[in-house]
Amino acid sequence: MRAVTIHGPRDVRVEDRPDPELRAPGDAIVRVRVACVCGSDLWTYRGIRSVPPGRPIGHELVGVVERVGTGVSSVRPGQTVIAPFCLSDGTCQECRAGFPSSCEDGSFWASEDSDGELLDGAQGEYVRVPLADRNLVAVPEDADDALLPDLLTLSDVLCTGYHAAVSAGVGPGTRVVVVGDGAVGLSAVLSARILGAPRIVAMSRHRDRADLAREFGATDVLPQRGEEAVPALRALLDGERAEAALECVGTQESMDEAIGLVRGGGRVGFVGVPAGGSVIPVRRLFDTNVTIGGGMAPVLTDLPLLLPLVLSGRIHPGRVFTASFPLERAADAYAAMDRREVIKSLLVVS
Amino acid sequence: MRAVTIHGPRDVRVEDRPDPELRAPGDAIVRVRVACVCGSDLWTYRGIRSVPPGRPIGHELVGVVERVGTGVSSVRPGQTVIAPFCLSDGTCQECRAGFPSSCEDGSFWASEDSDGELLDGAQGEYVRVPLADRNLVAVPEDADDALLPDLLTLSDVLCTGYHAAVSAGVGPGTRVVVVGDGAVGLSAVLSARILGAPRIVAMSRHRDRADLAREFGATDVLPQRGEEAVPALRALLDGERAEAALECVGTQESMDEAIGLVRGGGRVGFVGVPAGGSVIPVRRLFDTNVTIGGGMAPVLTDLPLLLPLVLSGRIHPGRVFTASFPLERAADAYAAMDRREVIKSLLVVS
Repeated sequence: MRAVTIHGPRDVRVEDRPDPELRAPGDAIVRVRVACVCGSDLWTYRGIRSVPPGRPIGHELVGVVERVGTGVSSVRPGQTVIAPFCLSDGTCQECRAGFPSSCEDGSFWASEDSDGELLDGAQGEYVRVPLADRNLVAVPEDADDALLPDLLTLSDVLCTGYHAAVSAGVGPGTRVVVVGDGAVGLSAVLSARILGAPRIVAMSRHRDRADLAREFGATDVLPQRGEEAVPALRALLDGERAEAALECVGTQESMDEAIGLVRGGGRVGFVGVPAGGSVIPVRRLFDTNVTIGGGMAPVLTDLPLLLPLVLSGRIHPGRVFTASFPLERAADAYAAMDRREVIKSLLVVS
Repeated sequence: MRAVTIHGPRDVRVEDRPDPELRAPGDAIVRVRVACVCGSDLWTYRGIRSVPPGRPIGHELVGVVERVGTGVSSVRPGQTVIAPFCLSDGTCQECRAGFPSSCEDGSFWASEDSDGELLDGAQGEYVRVPLADRNLVAVPEDADDALLPDLLTLSDVLCTGYHAAVSAGVGPGTRVVVVGDGAVGLSAVLSARILGAPRIVAMSRHRDRADLAREFGATDVLPQRGEEAVPALRALLDGERAEAALECVGTQESMDEAIGLVRGGGRVGFVGVPAGGSVIPVRRLFDTNVTIGGGMAPVLTDLPLLLPLVLSGRIHPGRVFTASFPLERAADAYAAMDRREVIKSLLVVS
């Protein structure tokens, strides 16, 4: 099969890789229809995170089940399925509590599982899905192909933005500020709207992203950053700060900023993959009573709540894909996103 | 008046200080009946935190109103009152949201207020209470003097333990582990019981504290620490970790330990005054989905919920006072607590 691999900084290729085979009774083979490039893939692309040369890459996909092992009962060949960005066992304490992304025996696409087996990357023609009954969510048969980009966001980015909002306790009484205007930040804006936030302030300096933020439900756009951001937010909110901040970047600066933008006793929901060794000083939380929650999104927990909104057309989270590329042009998909020419790159595989 | 002052490490004295006077219409003068030594006072006592020599000290008190300014309407002379450990204005965004300890114009006993005026310490015969309508809570007239130690815990330590439990979302479905067996940790145990936790594991190696923890509702006592603590906790909890950890110490080690003792997606409620520059690595929260909340307790918010439990005798939080000293023997009260001969020292003032 053809699959995307990464050989070093800015060296993305599409190469032949072995077709995946069923290895265990719980496995399924899925033919990928759409995949995409994640902000965290750009970390590898930019050399901030290094992986062995030639690794497959990608962790978001919607596809069609090709074959299933003898132990699979919840999906069958021909069904369209969404795969969450991380795999879980469904039996550990964390999975049972609804936090599959903290599964004690979890694994990630394009990484080794607990048996040392390298899993396929999502940016390729096929993937083997371990524990398919657990790790695939079937889409109703009558779903239109036009929904594929929207459905793909349920694999990661929409659920990630939603997790930020849930972790910050967003509801009808919460004024929200969103730090980060990438696809995750925009998904967080949309999620805050879904959860009923009356005021959603998107921090953005880019016209295309600010426009999409407004389309997704932002009531205000704040271009200021750093020291200027708090007074600018207060000017919008009758002299006050927000009840919740959604941190969707992952740097020390963005976390510091998020904490400063909420009132004492407020909440920060964070989902930005932490870059470097960012830390939270305990003293700052102690003095402000700000609660910090978040992390890797529990896709399997939230996907069932969000899927009907996509299927009914109430939300269009796939609008974050502002450019589409065939699999063979994956290098262009990365480069365009790296240069911020597109918000998020869609890969059409089959 | 006579009042406790601190002149340097382990140099606590009882000295003459000026009687406080009404300065503003909202002020009240309170004659202190009981005060006590806080674990955070020991930081000053041990020289970990330094203050100008001769400073008054103490921030927990129950007393009787002596005089009130012309603007005071909610308390009157002769009433027994509890003062929270920090003072707040009642008007800012934080106060209105129920987080007076993060008040934008707040101040502390024995520290300068926002006008630069040094407030009295609670360990003395009298205190001036600014904004007395806000910062004093009256006790019903028929309350027995025998309740004074229990009532005094509502000034800080019980509310602080309770804040740890609330911040960690403790309820009937939560198995709780409490890090720290000082008066705050023991109050956290009691608070977890109040909130209905079915399993409360107190971490302690001291017989007297472990006994009181059990009296307060601990179902288990865990002597292990550090690397041995997690497997020991799992052995108690059917191989699992707790849903909530209450961090009641304030060191880097205790915070690290608390995070490690909860399952992925669990919560840490912390109230230990942070010693040194302790930090939380964002990556650790990201990977575990553990939520961190807490800080300085919002006494005015929680006191009304806890006061009836004290008045009815349902709880006896004053059991943390294992020794009592007259004001003039304050130095002994500090020394006994410093040497861990007592859990918490009561000062009987008048």
